[in-house]
Amino acid sequence: MSTNNELQDAIDRIPLFDHHCHGVVTDTLTREEFEALISESSSAATPGTTRFDSQIGFQVRNLCAPVLGLDPFASPDDYIAARAELESEEVNKRFIRRTGIAEFGVETGHAADTITDPDAFRRTSGGTVYEIVRLERVAEQVAEAVRDGEAVGDKATEFLTQLGVTLDEHLVTAAGVKSIAAYRTGLDFDADRPSEQEVLAAAERFVRTSGKLRLEDSTLIRHLLWFAIDRAQVIQLHIGYGDDDVDLHRCNPLLLTNLFRASLESGARFTLLHCYPFHREAGYLADVFPHVYFDVGLAINYTGARSRAVIAESLELAPFGKILFSTDAFGLPELYYIGTLLFREGLLSVLEEFHKHNGWPIDECIRVAQMIGFENAQRLYGVSTTSSNEKEPS
Amino acid sequence: MSTNNELQDAIDRIPLFDHHCHGVVTDTLTREEFEALISESSSAATPGTTRFDSQIGFQVRNLCAPVLGLDPFASPDDYIAARAELESEEVNKRFIRRTGIAEFGVETGHAADTITDPDAFRRTSGGTVYEIVRLERVAEQVAEAVRDGEAVGDKATEFLTQLGVTLDEHLVTAAGVKSIAAYRTGLDFDADRPSEQEVLAAAERFVRTSGKLRLEDSTLIRHLLWFAIDRAQVIQLHIGYGDDDVDLHRCNPLLLTNLFRASLESGARFTLLHCYPFHREAGYLADVFPHVYFDVGLAINYTGARSRAVIAESLELAPFGKILFSTDAFGLPELYYIGTLLFREGLLSVLEEFHKHNGWPIDECIRVAQMIGFENAQRLYGVSTTSSNEKEPS
Amino acid sequence: MSTNNELQDAIDRIPLFDHHCHGVVTDTLTREEFEALISESSSAATPGTTRFDSQIGFQVRNLCAPVLGLDPFASPDDYIAARAELESEEVNKRFIRRTGIAEFGVETGHAADTITDPDAFRRTSGGTVYEIVRLERVAEQVAEAVRDGEAVGDKATEFLTQLGVTLDEHLVTAAGVKSIAAYRTGLDFDADRPSEQEVLAAAERFVRTSGKLRLEDSTLIRHLLWFAIDRAQVIQLHIGYGDDDVDLHRCNPLLLTNLFRASLESGARFTLLHCYPFHREAGYLADVFPHVYFDVGLAINYTGARSRAVIAESLELAPFGKILFSTDAFGLPELYYIGTLLFREGLLSVLEEFHKHNGWPIDECIRVAQMIGFENAQRLYGVSTTSSNEKEPS
Repeated sequence: MSTNNELQDAIDRIPLFDHHCHGVVTDTLTREEFEALISESSSAATPGTTRFDSQIGFQVRNLCAPVLGLDPFASPDDYIAARAELESEEVNKRFIRRTGIAEFGVETGHAADTITDPDAFRRTSGGTVYEIVRLERVAEQVAEAVRDGEAVGDKATEFLTQLGVTLDEHLVTAAGVKSIAAYRTGLDFDADRPSEQEVLAAAERFVRTSGKLRLEDSTLIRHLLWFAIDRAQVIQLHIGYGDDDVDLHRCNPLLLTNLFRASLESGARFTLLHCYPFHREAGYLADVFPHVYFDVGLAINYTGARSRAVIAESLELAPFGKILFSTDAFGLPELYYIGTLLFREGLLSVLEEFHKHNGWPIDECIRVAQMIGFENAQRLYGVSTTSSNEKEPS
Repeated sequence: MSTNNELQDAIDRIPLFDHHCHGVVTDTLTREEFEALISESSSAATPGTTRFDSQIGFQVRNLCAPVLGLDPFASPDDYIAARAELESEEVNKRFIRRTGIAEFGVETGHAADTITDPDAFRRTSGGTVYEIVRLERVAEQVAEAVRDGEAVGDKATEFLTQLGVTLDEHLVTAAGVKSIAAYRTGLDFDADRPSEQEVLAAAERFVRTSGKLRLEDSTLIRHLLWFAIDRAQVIQLHIGYGDDDVDLHRCNPLLLTNLFRASLESGARFTLLHCYPFHREAGYLADVFPHVYFDVGLAINYTGARSRAVIAESLELAPFGKILFSTDAFGLPELYYIGTLLFREGLLSVLEEFHKHNGWPIDECIRVAQMIGFENAQRLYGVSTTSSNEKEPS
Repeated sequence: MSTNNELQDAIDRIPLFDHHCHGVVTDTLTREEFEALISESSSAATPGTTRFDSQIGFQVRNLCAPVLGLDPFASPDDYIAARAELESEEVNKRFIRRTGIAEFGVETGHAADTITDPDAFRRTSGGTVYEIVRLERVAEQVAEAVRDGEAVGDKATEFLTQLGVTLDEHLVTAAGVKSIAAYRTGLDFDADRPSEQEVLAAAERFVRTSGKLRLEDSTLIRHLLWFAIDRAQVIQLHIGYGDDDVDLHRCNPLLLTNLFRASLESGARFTLLHCYPFHREAGYLADVFPHVYFDVGLAINYTGARSRAVIAESLELAPFGKILFSTDAFGLPELYYIGTLLFREGLLSVLEEFHKHNGWPIDECIRVAQMIGFENAQRLYGVSTTSSNEKEPS
């Protein structure tokens, strides 16, 4: 059928904007290390099982093995062996450069010492790279520096001052910020802007803490969110599914309803990341709040052969101009590759059904696919490959 | 395939009972006004986007354009222009009289001054119209009249007395009542009947409030619900998805479990409206509580090409005798038209699959479709077009 | 298509391990009694409706009628009449022996006086039967015996001592334990191990209660759970959907996140039963916690023609080595029969789609089906039909 081919060709050629992803590892990986990177769990696989026996594991064997010269569904051991024979930079390039991703929003705050930084990632990927700043990480770094540095006055005040300065420096080049409030306090926090006294008191407690700092204080996290709201930033929020450090029932995006109401006129915009299994709730929020966007990034990779269904569910209430694409790839270049293949296939499958059963013209299907694939993100972040001079990528 | 044709013909011919809907506007609409009526949001579309780029917008262009003499998927501007060339009464009649809806349960409490009243709607639609009384609206109207009227005693007591009298007058002709507790207090309220003292104290606060009254007091709302329970009414409840005035996470119908337990023997019956994304939870409640019914009305319109999936999910736990049909159309006659077309198509698609994969005979499929389409509502509301003398429609 | 036949044959031949089920009734049933056993409701069907007009009712008429010599979709009355003509033992054998279930985990704590015990069930089914002990039931029986027996010291202390002794006796032969904390307290309880003083105080209150005891005390239920955790048991937990005695919104398995964190190193393992409509949440927990497993047992029977979709949704985040099969059949042998037919058909349908659309080889599909069908349960419970000497079935 020519229409399907036309739609498939168009979707295959979309220069994707992966608005939320991370760097990749540069070490050669053992099977155990590789398995740890294809699950959100912080534990090893259950005895008697392997992480390869999962949707993501099957996708690695099926889709990635041929990229390494193996047959589809090569055994895990063969896959790890073939991978280890190549330079890691070659592995990374081979997968990432096949994705057709043109623009990357690379978040730099998670386990940054184990993965490539944006500059290295730009060289590996050959794409345009925008930096996304993780608010909590910057706060932790600034607080440690102030705490451990020379006392030039009240450390809490100095921390807050330095935090503002440092974030503003980042925002000169960064395309947006990210918050992991979901992990650190859950999303059931008070939406109100905290008072100066509350923030100062929280800052005093924080800079008095010894050891490696981990920001879990709700007041400071809200301070960071309102800092970004005041600067009309694009604020990426972890939502829903993640690792076992998250209380998933406290990561429902509906818990942010009051925050969205309070920031409606601020100029800030929010992108709800992943969202599974709350992606229908996210679609509702993207409908009723003009400054809320969402994606089902991580869930596409990890639901594998079922990602079609997740993509379909993401196309219910939300206006088509509010849905984004991301891989949330971390560590493994395979996650970029699988995430884009599954996204293109799933979106094709869903749009074909809308074409066949609901009469959507092919050119309208293509238009919707391009919106989700890159146009919405370009409009949202105010950047584009053709006009990237306006906002210089980091 | 003859069986499919038989099933399709039967479903196309069902004289639907739209048990929850609203009047239509009689003004000629600008594009901006039209767009505002195809989203639950109270905000304008995000800059750079249009409300037409959504499931509902695509359905308008696809299904409704031909009714106005345009090609399917006419442009939004062409659609608005063609629509504006017709008298609004002609637009309203053209869409509504093509729906095959025979009976309407018209709820009159929402923005009543902007849409047709039941009498006008009866003339436009040519159908049988039953009135559904919105409890909170009646309470607000009575309270304003008492507050602003001559003092003939304690105003709180007078308000409560007049409220009872007025509601009882409505119930002579109305087919049921509706509560928007979901919007006003959320559904996580105490299920117990409030005491007389509590109700009186709440009434005192309410009639002392100045300006246009908005009933948000949980005690008075519970008083209204128990008033209706005591009169063994059919009580329509807004559930789940709605506009941005709702805290969606507090609109899960499971929060009403204790209310359903407490009213099991009362003779009252509850219909859970829309329910998305909690329609599976609604199906559970309809299974375990004999006096609980539900529909996925609003969600059918707004999920468009995905409404098949929502309808399918509504056919899981619930007994087939407990599922209802509604459009929840408000303002636009297109919403009646799209809602019925999508309902018929979606139900056909789901029942065909049950026929093909699970051996359901065509006559059983038809029987289930007729139950959902109108028989359940006729039994529930105690009315039917052929025996409507027993309960005179308003 | 040969591949489909190969996959179908393989799935049809799987010797299933039904890890959570109950005994069957031995009385001849009236239609009313039968209808009561094909719904989770404790109420009769709504006037004007029948429990046969439901997914489970249609499956009985379609799949079970031929086993009684009737045509598919025989009328409910014909079905009940044909069933009543046979000895109940013949009915039970006829259905259960057609299921292809080789191993049964029979839970004995629910309405044990109305259904067959494990020994009788072994004779009827011809399969290997493992007993699963319901913790709350044992506690109630022990407390009643202590309360009503001769005083030989402090009754609370004696109750706790006897409880430990009795449970340990059960665990010599039982394959695991079951808790219905979901029904009795909801799952939103404190995950911490209760202190000895707290347990003693709760025990004192419990043994002072008169009449038939019903354990609803959160402290004692947590004591039971931690007793089982300390003994590294397989702990079956009721999750999600059940009868109207449950507060479904308090049965989300995510509420147990802290309990899973606290027991990670204990050697105990948890199986989340049924889970609908929280099966996606269960899949997440099975991914991130190595000691968490789940099934969608009950939901398969009760969603009937929609069970394919539920099975598909259970194959998203969870590693394939963590998904189990159960029927949760209670009372009616038909529930074993329908549950296995729907499971085999649904799994076939889902795996065929993964084969066709995602290139899963047939042998990998078969391997996944065998894991879910019986291998995971054999590994988890440490039993197998071929090596059942190690752990003697009860």
